[in-house]
Amino acid sequence: MSEAAGEKRRTGDRLAELGKRRGFFFPSFESYGGVAGLYTYGPNGAALKRHLEDAWRDRFTVKEGNFEIHAPTVTPKPVLDASGHTDAFDDMLIECGECGETHRADHLVEDATELEDAESVPPEEMAGLIEDHDIRCPECGASLVDRPVESFNLMFETAIGPGDSTPGFLRPETAQSIFVEFPRLAEYARSELPFGVTQIGPGYRNEISPRRGLVRVREFGMAELELFVDPARNEPPLSSVAAVQLRLYPIDAQAADGKSYRNVTVEEALERNIIQNQWVAYYVGLARQWYDRIGIDPDRLRFRQHQAGERAHYATDCWDAEVEIDGAWIEIAGLAHRGCYDLAKHDEHADDDYTVFRPYDEPVTVERATVAPDMGQLGPTFGEQAPAVVDALEELVSTEPEAFEGESVAVTVDDTELEIPVEHTGFSRETVRETGERIMPEVIEPSFGIDRTVYTILAHNLKQDVVDGEERTYLALPSELAPTFVAVFPLMDRDGLGERARSVAADLRAAGFEVAYDDSGNIGRRYRRQDEVGTPFCVTIDYDTLEDGTVTIRDRDTTAQERVAIDALPGTLRALGNGDRTLQG
Amino acid sequence: MSEAAGEKRRTGDRLAELGKRRGFFFPSFESYGGVAGLYTYGPNGAALKRHLEDAWRDRFTVKEGNFEIHAPTVTPKPVLDASGHTDAFDDMLIECGECGETHRADHLVEDATELEDAESVPPEEMAGLIEDHDIRCPECGASLVDRPVESFNLMFETAIGPGDSTPGFLRPETAQSIFVEFPRLAEYARSELPFGVTQIGPGYRNEISPRRGLVRVREFGMAELELFVDPARNEPPLSSVAAVQLRLYPIDAQAADGKSYRNVTVEEALERNIIQNQWVAYYVGLARQWYDRIGIDPDRLRFRQHQAGERAHYATDCWDAEVEIDGAWIEIAGLAHRGCYDLAKHDEHADDDYTVFRPYDEPVTVERATVAPDMGQLGPTFGEQAPAVVDALEELVSTEPEAFEGESVAVTVDDTELEIPVEHTGFSRETVRETGERIMPEVIEPSFGIDRTVYTILAHNLKQDVVDGEERTYLALPSELAPTFVAVFPLMDRDGLGERARSVAADLRAAGFEVAYDDSGNIGRRYRRQDEVGTPFCVTIDYDTLEDGTVTIRDRDTTAQERVAIDALPGTLRALGNGDRTLQG
Repeated sequence: MSEAAGEKRRTGDRLAELGKRRGFFFPSFESYGGVAGLYTYGPNGAALKRHLEDAWRDRFTVKEGNFEIHAPTVTPKPVLDASGHTDAFDDMLIECGECGETHRADHLVEDATELEDAESVPPEEMAGLIEDHDIRCPECGASLVDRPVESFNLMFETAIGPGDSTPGFLRPETAQSIFVEFPRLAEYARSELPFGVTQIGPGYRNEISPRRGLVRVREFGMAELELFVDPARNEPPLSSVAAVQLRLYPIDAQAADGKSYRNVTVEEALERNIIQNQWVAYYVGLARQWYDRIGIDPDRLRFRQHQAGERAHYATDCWDAEVEIDGAWIEIAGLAHRGCYDLAKHDEHADDDYTVFRPYDEPVTVERATVAPDMGQLGPTFGEQAPAVVDALEELVSTEPEAFEGESVAVTVDDTELEIPVEHTGFSRETVRETGERIMPEVIEPSFGIDRTVYTILAHNLKQDVVDGEERTYLALPSELAPTFVAVFPLMDRDGLGERARSVAADLRAAGFEVAYDDSGNIGRRYRRQDEVGTPFCVTIDYDTLEDGTVTIRDRDTTAQERVAIDALPGTLRALGNGDRTLQG
Repeated sequence: MSEAAGEKRRTGDRLAELGKRRGFFFPSFESYGGVAGLYTYGPNGAALKRHLEDAWRDRFTVKEGNFEIHAPTVTPKPVLDASGHTDAFDDMLIECGECGETHRADHLVEDATELEDAESVPPEEMAGLIEDHDIRCPECGASLVDRPVESFNLMFETAIGPGDSTPGFLRPETAQSIFVEFPRLAEYARSELPFGVTQIGPGYRNEISPRRGLVRVREFGMAELELFVDPARNEPPLSSVAAVQLRLYPIDAQAADGKSYRNVTVEEALERNIIQNQWVAYYVGLARQWYDRIGIDPDRLRFRQHQAGERAHYATDCWDAEVEIDGAWIEIAGLAHRGCYDLAKHDEHADDDYTVFRPYDEPVTVERATVAPDMGQLGPTFGEQAPAVVDALEELVSTEPEAFEGESVAVTVDDTELEIPVEHTGFSRETVRETGERIMPEVIEPSFGIDRTVYTILAHNLKQDVVDGEERTYLALPSELAPTFVAVFPLMDRDGLGERARSVAADLRAAGFEVAYDDSGNIGRRYRRQDEVGTPFCVTIDYDTLEDGTVTIRDRDTTAQERVAIDALPGTLRALGNGDRTLQG
């Protein structure tokens, strides 16, 4: 534990230092004293984040044939009332009576006990745990026993418009802005299930105590897919991921000893019923493959099943992708089966229809009872009550058509039972041909945290080795994600080497590569600078270049070098980037 | 005027209808009654917006050698106090006494008078204009005379964190999140001027009365470049844009008759002093070129100089790019010389240094007077006041070194004048070698509105013609921006045509194209569907394909068709997309 904590400080601190110095990420507004939980991505971080989002889009939108949308972050309150967020998007807050510092009660309890998941402890039991363990304020040491544990809603609140403004919030997730527009999106998808809608963009949580760099922040990037499926008819293309190896950490294993993972393929996970839902298993497999592609260390990745108490009450099965950094496991994605919960809530609260039409395989013929009330009779008899009588008759015929089989039928209007002659109701039975029915799709939601994933990629690829007797730090980023793909150096900026190097750099930019140009300091130092920001390839222009038109390409990870002709540079770099070729140093 | 208004309804309504039906954009949260000024981009709109942002990034970040960052939207109040936004980011609000509807007073005055720019009328004169023109509530017709005209701050307010929360706002522009981090960004740029920092992301204005589709919204995309320059030393690479043709609308022309544009090149605009600043002229030229690339109609584009009253008080020269839609001119970008205003404000309010070191061409030698107070003497004499005495001596020696030329020197501490023997001050004059000085860069800001640009691209490229005797609507989008680059159709889904078409589509996707697949309805209808969303090319797989491996490519704008071999498809499509080749129909 102490070793793990030591390790933790080391990587966390190294990333904070590198992030600041080399323009990956740093705390925002520090010149004004800063605000916890807000970070700015510098040039290298913004590029890495963008490339990560592109890689997500490629995998979860384009290759899956889904649609991406872009919705506002400001969201009116009724939408979040319906989704349950105004009510239940809370954390447990405890405020120190001495110094006034606020803390998350569940985090304090986790730090003081063996509990791994105090978030699922009911708030009323929290006070007892705080007393039992005599928990004190981490800031000033004062006792927190008898301090109230309160629910704090984590949404940022605002007001939309002037005057009688509409209350609103910054969206806590991108998902609701997809669900709420389901009727229009279904129309766009021609109501054919399954269809998936994705969104990449900011989400907001007004955290009580932000911590650990990019891990717990107040404004964060999310990439979410909401897949709408017909549970009776749609199946995922499982064969494409059946053989993918997973490290699963199901509920029973968590209960047992906390370390006994199930190392199985996607296919085995379903056969053995470790993952129940085929769609969830499919996306766990897809996520595992994608994490390989973006450079997450597979030995520090697991999929953990949510405990019953921690799972949102509507989710039938939910698995988190978790990664290890400095001895701690951090959630970087959630893969959930949300059932019909979200669409049903909006169907109930909104003025729109959140179902889709599902055609039957064959049209069916059904008998249906109807009324066509004779207003010439009902109008004079019931006066102002007549419309209510019609409503009552229509309700009755749909639920209890046999009531119309006698001479008269009884309905209750305004607490009065009225007898109506059946001949005045226009009762009839007819045979209709129905071609389908309306169903509410179920939702599968793979939801990825962008900032935590950026942080993990940096943490898992920050490496050290010794080159030419000197210690070297490098970021072994996949080429696809590296902020700069290739750096171009003139050996020195004289004798026309600079001009030649600038022209090589310009040509590579025109060919679509992200290029850095650097002519300051000795070549060794320039290599180190690029290694530290993860540039996979460096190209050096030297005196031989002027003679024979060749340049040196150097590989970041192996430091192997090879001379190639300038003309062959774009093709060679592309092959190196795809992994189709390696340098023969 | 009535013709223009008729035209306006037509294009605006057509875009609203197309936007909704074909997934470009639509009002958000309509199932909950909607909120004015919030729009969701459907799949086609989100793709168009993303491609537009990529085109901006390519031109204003990559090709210019600038850096892109990504900062939070939630911004603590002190930052916006310093920038002047909490104080002055206001619109003039008038509320109807009858119906309670709120309006922008300047918009009502513009609608009722000949004034084009009532925003620059001082609030105290507004009431007079409202009375003179007997302006009434557009909602209910009640008189607005004597209703108060109030300043309404347009920032969305929120609270950061629990308990004694920090007041914050959603950023009104991306620019401040660049300025505030200037010290760190300058370090990243090794303090070498000029350097430019860009950001693409949301900005927020809590508009009083949002209107006209995507034109005046409450949450919008921005793309901003803040270029930091040394005014004495840096010059833009003007030759690259010198010959670009501009349609300028300077202040004097606006005063004259409102229609006399100056049609000049960038070079002429500078020579004739129509645009004063070289950097501003450079970016006006760059913007004009870029607008060509993204499909803005050059005949409906002008650059209008800000009037003195409308210009932010710090801006020395500012030009808006304006486009005509339905007879109205709409600002889609601002190109401003902001001077040192922003950095000076942050330098004043923040705890950091917003200058950079500028080396002299040659080091200079200067004489400098210093003190080194003798605490052994001052300590016993002044006790607790001693540190204040030292501060006073240091202040005095830097402003008035000759005061130390006598036997004693007088300083005032806590309103008391104290005499101090010069020998106890450690006064000396020394000669120092200075290699440079600290200067505050000036800022050039090209700032682009993404949503308005998307809207303009749609408006300027929504076309109608007649094909085979039928009226057709198509979006003549540049290939680079089209949501889908190529659509693949099987003539019908039988006899293996569907399989072959799906395999062609998959191969094109793998080659990096954005591909749609459609097998429903007759080919003519499928062409129309793609025309309407701006897909530049359609590829049809028919019975000949099965025989000879050729397919038909069809061009959206000319409807020309040509048969090419499947193997040649990626290369041909790429050449067509670049404009290197056209179809021989």
